[in-house]
Amino acid sequence: VTAGEAEPLLAFLDLMSPTETALAISRLSSEDQSRLLTLLSPADAAEVLEDISETQAADMIEELSPAHAAAILEELDSDHIADLLGDMDEDSAAAILDNMAPEEAEEARQFLEYPPDTAGGLMISECLAYREEQRISDVLTDLQANRETYADYNVQYLYVTDERQRLRGVLRMHDLLFPVHAAPLSQLMIRDPHKVRVDAGLDRLRDFFEEHRLFGAPVVDEQNRLQGVVLPEAVEEAGRKRSVRQFLGLSGIIGGEEFRSMPLLVRSGRRLSWLSLNIVLNIIAASVIAIYQDTLAAAIALAVFLPMVSDMSGCSGNQAVAVSMRELSLGLVRPGELLRVMAKEASLGVVNGLALGLLLGAVAFFWKNNYYLGLVVGGALAANTLVAVTLGGLLPLLLKRLKMDPALVSSPLLTTVTDMAGFFFVLSFATAVLPRLSGG
Amino acid sequence: VTAGEAEPLLAFLDLMSPTETALAISRLSSEDQSRLLTLLSPADAAEVLEDISETQAADMIEELSPAHAAAILEELDSDHIADLLGDMDEDSAAAILDNMAPEEAEEARQFLEYPPDTAGGLMISECLAYREEQRISDVLTDLQANRETYADYNVQYLYVTDERQRLRGVLRMHDLLFPVHAAPLSQLMIRDPHKVRVDAGLDRLRDFFEEHRLFGAPVVDEQNRLQGVVLPEAVEEAGRKRSVRQFLGLSGIIGGEEFRSMPLLVRSGRRLSWLSLNIVLNIIAASVIAIYQDTLAAAIALAVFLPMVSDMSGCSGNQAVAVSMRELSLGLVRPGELLRVMAKEASLGVVNGLALGLLLGAVAFFWKNNYYLGLVVGGALAANTLVAVTLGGLLPLLLKRLKMDPALVSSPLLTTVTDMAGFFFVLSFATAVLPRLSGG
Repeated sequence: VTAGEAEPLLAFLDLMSPTETALAISRLSSEDQSRLLTLLSPADAAEVLEDISETQAADMIEELSPAHAAAILEELDSDHIADLLGDMDEDSAAAILDNMAPEEAEEARQFLEYPPDTAGGLMISECLAYREEQRISDVLTDLQANRETYADYNVQYLYVTDERQRLRGVLRMHDLLFPVHAAPLSQLMIRDPHKVRVDAGLDRLRDFFEEHRLFGAPVVDEQNRLQGVVLPEAVEEAGRKRSVRQFLGLSGIIGGEEFRSMPLLVRSGRRLSWLSLNIVLNIIAASVIAIYQDTLAAAIALAVFLPMVSDMSGCSGNQAVAVSMRELSLGLVRPGELLRVMAKEASLGVVNGLALGLLLGAVAFFWKNNYYLGLVVGGALAANTLVAVTLGGLLPLLLKRLKMDPALVSSPLLTTVTDMAGFFFVLSFATAVLPRLSGG
Repeated sequence: VTAGEAEPLLAFLDLMSPTETALAISRLSSEDQSRLLTLLSPADAAEVLEDISETQAADMIEELSPAHAAAILEELDSDHIADLLGDMDEDSAAAILDNMAPEEAEEARQFLEYPPDTAGGLMISECLAYREEQRISDVLTDLQANRETYADYNVQYLYVTDERQRLRGVLRMHDLLFPVHAAPLSQLMIRDPHKVRVDAGLDRLRDFFEEHRLFGAPVVDEQNRLQGVVLPEAVEEAGRKRSVRQFLGLSGIIGGEEFRSMPLLVRSGRRLSWLSLNIVLNIIAASVIAIYQDTLAAAIALAVFLPMVSDMSGCSGNQAVAVSMRELSLGLVRPGELLRVMAKEASLGVVNGLALGLLLGAVAFFWKNNYYLGLVVGGALAANTLVAVTLGGLLPLLLKRLKMDPALVSSPLLTTVTDMAGFFFVLSFATAVLPRLSGG
């Protein structure tokens, strides 16, 4: 496909939905991807890049010459440029910035300095701002004259500033429908509008848009100077990306997204980095079994129940982790409320521990018709469920207090502890009643 | 707090952010929650309900008298009413509907019939619609006259319909700024606007808003009659809820959300329903160990490696599940592409299986200084990694084709198979070389 010319290609891409474009592009080799971007005009290439994931887009741009890359980036909005540059390595980003128009490069550099999940990192600079002494008629004239430029802007609100660019008020587009055209904006505007600071974090921004159902929030610096506008869509998108990171993290994909179009060794290496940590944790947990080898040899039936007790408790613990993470993200629990969560989870741990312990204990008893085997297995599962549920409920809160990401760390930590504790309970209970176990 | 009067309470609630309100309410007993809603005016109560999660809001409303509940619901928008009624049991919902104004009840009943994650289920009926022969001046007069009512509406677009309510065109609010007031809408409107069918699903809606960056999409029935408008926020929200369901499902919380404010036995029962399925799967997997008991007794060192091999492969498999689910949700892979995914994952399985097998095999060898132990353990991990990764990559695609939810079913199914296969590989390899294993 990419051996040909730009025209039919463009027509073809136009027909496809963003998802189809993303699919088609991810199936091309990386040379064909570069050739595709080079064939298209910068504006068309920019549109293609908007359809695909940022990780892929950044990779594609890095393959181009800095001058060409700069031309394409200039077509994107300020927030998107910064995101893509942030995804590249520093040298490529610097080379591209050097090739951009000085003004745009300056702005992009400034955007790059804001941390990604803050108002500064999420805002776009494309918004309508007027001075408070300007009149409605001035605004209407300007809107008419710059229709084309403003088509890409967020035109829900007009922001009103003073001579030092400090935010003074806001007007909604439909406020322009009726008033006298000669009136200055300062008369009509809503004073002291809701606004966010450049350093406001993602949670703060979500709260803001939940509280004030606005189509955009003006972003100001410490001196109340208007810097840009952050749209609720950008906040949603950032939240969604955070959930994706958490989901991938929970499943053991760390260090960024993986697509099957990436080279085999890159995918393999990324997955191994996590698995090799896991192997160490597993060895630590399994060493408990090594210590109790003699008990196990004497009552080999226990070997059947060892993985069951640790697996089941791991599942119980993960349920508690999920509830804590959910309550944390909804703000229904604060990281300091350890005692409250402990009490809630411990009581549930007792109930579920007894229920599961009775069930598995009964299975063990009927299998070998040995009362003590049932007692050991059931007792161990009950005790370990209590440990797992309590620890699972507390871990996300503790990790949050330590400023670590609960999504990434909770699960492996929990599993290691529940494995160790599970092996320990089964084998130490068994050691205590060993003559009666092997006798049965 | 709730023993007092409405006034100070309202002032207090006004001061709090939505998250704080949600936290405060979830800490009240259910009697205090009902008392709170009864004290507030229906409009204020409705605002409180908007701040908290739907599950909690539906529970609170069910506790009220149907008449009171109806009064509060009438203050909410049409989509929200249907969501809350859908979360209640049918009798309560019917009782409340009987107490609502006939028109609103009729509308709510109609909304309840649309499946939740479709355009019909997500749309609101509050939108501005005019007839094509009406003039700009008519619209402006109407907008002026009904300012207050329209304040809660989605006023980004005006939809234009014919005499049979069929959608003919759309006007943006700022299209009203300049034109001649006497012109009929049919002259100015954009004809054949982008629209969605009432039965469009969530993925279709997401694609729609990704492709057309609109502030709302008109929803039409089979006869092209305007039914309402679906906002991108509603689609985002539904997508977010779906991810939450998936996250909770992955962690073994099924049958709806759990909050620690719920009664202990409800929480315990919900978690147990999942765990008892898990116990059955675990018993099936562990039965493999029971079959090979004699081998295990003869080479008890294997017991240390049994849980390690199955755990490690489970992790490898879950990584592949995560990548498949991610690619499915981005549209980068189609459910039918089994061979492509199998090839990609199998080659990765060989690489990672060899790497991990060598590592764990070396550990086993050095521990007991037994060459055969290393071979059995390493070989089993390598073989099981290949199985786990290939199966993990394919499962989400297969489940999707069977119209099952990959998020809920992939992980337990995968773990059962990797456990069984892991136990089988270790113990059957060991049986083959048993004399040399126990001899070492």
